[in-house]
Amino acid sequence: MYKATVNVTLRKSILDPKGKAAHHALEDLGLTDINSVRIGKLIELDIDADDKDKAHEVAETACEKLLANEVMEDFEITISEN
Amino acid sequence: MYKATVNVTLRKSILDPKGKAAHHALEDLGLTDINSVRIGKLIELDIDADDKDKAHEVAETACEKLLANEVMEDFEITISEN
Repeated sequence: MYKATVNVTLRKSILDPKGKAAHHALEDLGLTDINSVRIGKLIELDIDADDKDKAHEVAETACEKLLANEVMEDFEITISEN
Repeated sequence: MYKATVNVTLRKSILDPKGKAAHHALEDLGLTDINSVRIGKLIELDIDADDKDKAHEVAETACEKLLANEVMEDFEITISEN
């Protein structure tokens, strides 16, 4: 069993309204030293696979088919043993 | 300028409906080797601070006051130079 940790982040050129809203709220709370906030997804998958490469392949397929929108988002997969 | 990467994850004991929905959708797409999916947040902050410790403190305050709901979520902060 492997654990895949997937970081899905909005591409730099794409406006991040959730991040902007959080940024303004933090400023209102007095945290004025924060210059930017960007919010992405952190997805954890438990995968049954024979080896690390196979687990990476399954995670990549999951990202391409469902978890990430490659038009707007980048993803990064890290596999560890569980 | 420092960059704080914050991983916000739902506590193990809390049901994750978004993760469950993604899990079912992945099964329907034929990815049956995935046993569980949990979806959290990945938040990136750019922080103006004199040193790493100060940046960590700002990020921690931001999490406690706004970014994480500590009743249901855990957070983990990593600081790097920008």
